[in-house]
Amino acid sequence: MFIIGERINGMYKDVHKALVEHKDDVIIDLAKKQVAAGAQALDINVGPASEDPMKDMQWLVEVAQKATDARLCIDTTKADVMEKCLSLCKQRPVINSTTGQKEKLDVLMPLAKKYNASIIGLTMTKSGIPQDAHSRIEIATQIIMAAQEQGVDMEDLYIDAVILPVNVAQPHAKEVLDTIRQIKVLCDPSPKTVLGLSNVSQGTPNRPLINRTYLTMAVAAGLDAAIVDPMDKELMDEMITAELLMEKAIYCDSYIDAYKKK
Amino acid sequence: MFIIGERINGMYKDVHKALVEHKDDVIIDLAKKQVAAGAQALDINVGPASEDPMKDMQWLVEVAQKATDARLCIDTTKADVMEKCLSLCKQRPVINSTTGQKEKLDVLMPLAKKYNASIIGLTMTKSGIPQDAHSRIEIATQIIMAAQEQGVDMEDLYIDAVILPVNVAQPHAKEVLDTIRQIKVLCDPSPKTVLGLSNVSQGTPNRPLINRTYLTMAVAAGLDAAIVDPMDKELMDEMITAELLMEKAIYCDSYIDAYKKK
Repeated sequence: MFIIGERINGMYKDVHKALVEHKDDVIIDLAKKQVAAGAQALDINVGPASEDPMKDMQWLVEVAQKATDARLCIDTTKADVMEKCLSLCKQRPVINSTTGQKEKLDVLMPLAKKYNASIIGLTMTKSGIPQDAHSRIEIATQIIMAAQEQGVDMEDLYIDAVILPVNVAQPHAKEVLDTIRQIKVLCDPSPKTVLGLSNVSQGTPNRPLINRTYLTMAVAAGLDAAIVDPMDKELMDEMITAELLMEKAIYCDSYIDAYKKK
Repeated sequence: MFIIGERINGMYKDVHKALVEHKDDVIIDLAKKQVAAGAQALDINVGPASEDPMKDMQWLVEVAQKATDARLCIDTTKADVMEKCLSLCKQRPVINSTTGQKEKLDVLMPLAKKYNASIIGLTMTKSGIPQDAHSRIEIATQIIMAAQEQGVDMEDLYIDAVILPVNVAQPHAKEVLDTIRQIKVLCDPSPKTVLGLSNVSQGTPNRPLINRTYLTMAVAAGLDAAIVDPMDKELMDEMITAELLMEKAIYCDSYIDAYKKK
């Protein structure tokens, strides 16, 4: 599982405060702890309250790169901020994200190619997030075609089937699992699959339990990557166990420690 | 999920001691606690060390029925003990179990019909447990045909795809999930599916974590019933959450409590 740490996001109070006060120790600490807990990439998002996303994103990228060598996942809807941040990355970045809209694909796929980046493609369009797996797959197909046209490898395309909170959109949980399963057999080589996991539990009182249960189901469906809080030890232990049961690692009694040493 | 409590089994030291000393309070306590924790049926098994299975099984059945009105799941390989215990059950019993062997099916399917019992069919034969889903499905088909010949409803047939310990037979975990998924579309109406769950973690140091992770995967694959320890609160909470995500219940913030009140 390619783990993208979600914690450097201005939606979190500590990150927002650090941004406003330019306290790089908070960001450095979050970067180091997430990598130590198993993140291979770090999502970077200034959050909706940033007054100057261009400046704030660059600052976060620079601070995160002071702290670790992990890949960065540039999480912004602004194309100019995206390109600026991509140009600053020392490791291969991840673009988070395009949707299936032509206007987005026309801008972001060429950026992926130019900066040798991976790219996350959300199965949604201007009309929103579809109800069922079938319509999600239609949008995924558009994204795949755009990647192929631009020469972006399937290895570098991560389709995110967009999970919605179970308390408001309960039927989506099954549809997203079906989408993940179908994407893995849609073409050969197939793109990878990713989930912004914590959305599934937004607004519920049992967030960690719902997150880890759904992640396990997604691993069984063939999920390749997840944007999660890697410092949630119960989540990570269960994810490692789910991958073991799917034979992504060879069993040994200390399989959890063995995974972390990788 | 039809939960069959696994704890009244002579393999457990407390049950074996209670059997030897004829201490019915231990059995009554285990029966009541399992039902309170969510078991709809109680597995009854004297264990391998019983010197007189006929006498011991009858005693367990009688004591369990003193304690609760739950259905009993008669878990013995001896046909005469099976029939005697079935005849003592006040609620509709569950036969645990037949295999796909003709000699077994010829004896146990007629007993299921005679006593209006549900029956668990293991996807194994004299030659053992198959490696893959395909061969498990072949055996399941034999069991389904035997049930249909005897007039046992698909509602009452539970196919158990036989999970083996992940530390010795790791590839089986995926095959069993595939088997569960395929059985649900094998015929219409399809038989139900069940797992003797705790076998997956036999001999490993992380038994509860492996059990609940695999149960969640099996719920996502469509599992209908499980033989588990319902007093494992983390297992039950995660199973309830998994069923919620699969839309087996309507979301409410207190969905775990709501499940337990059913």
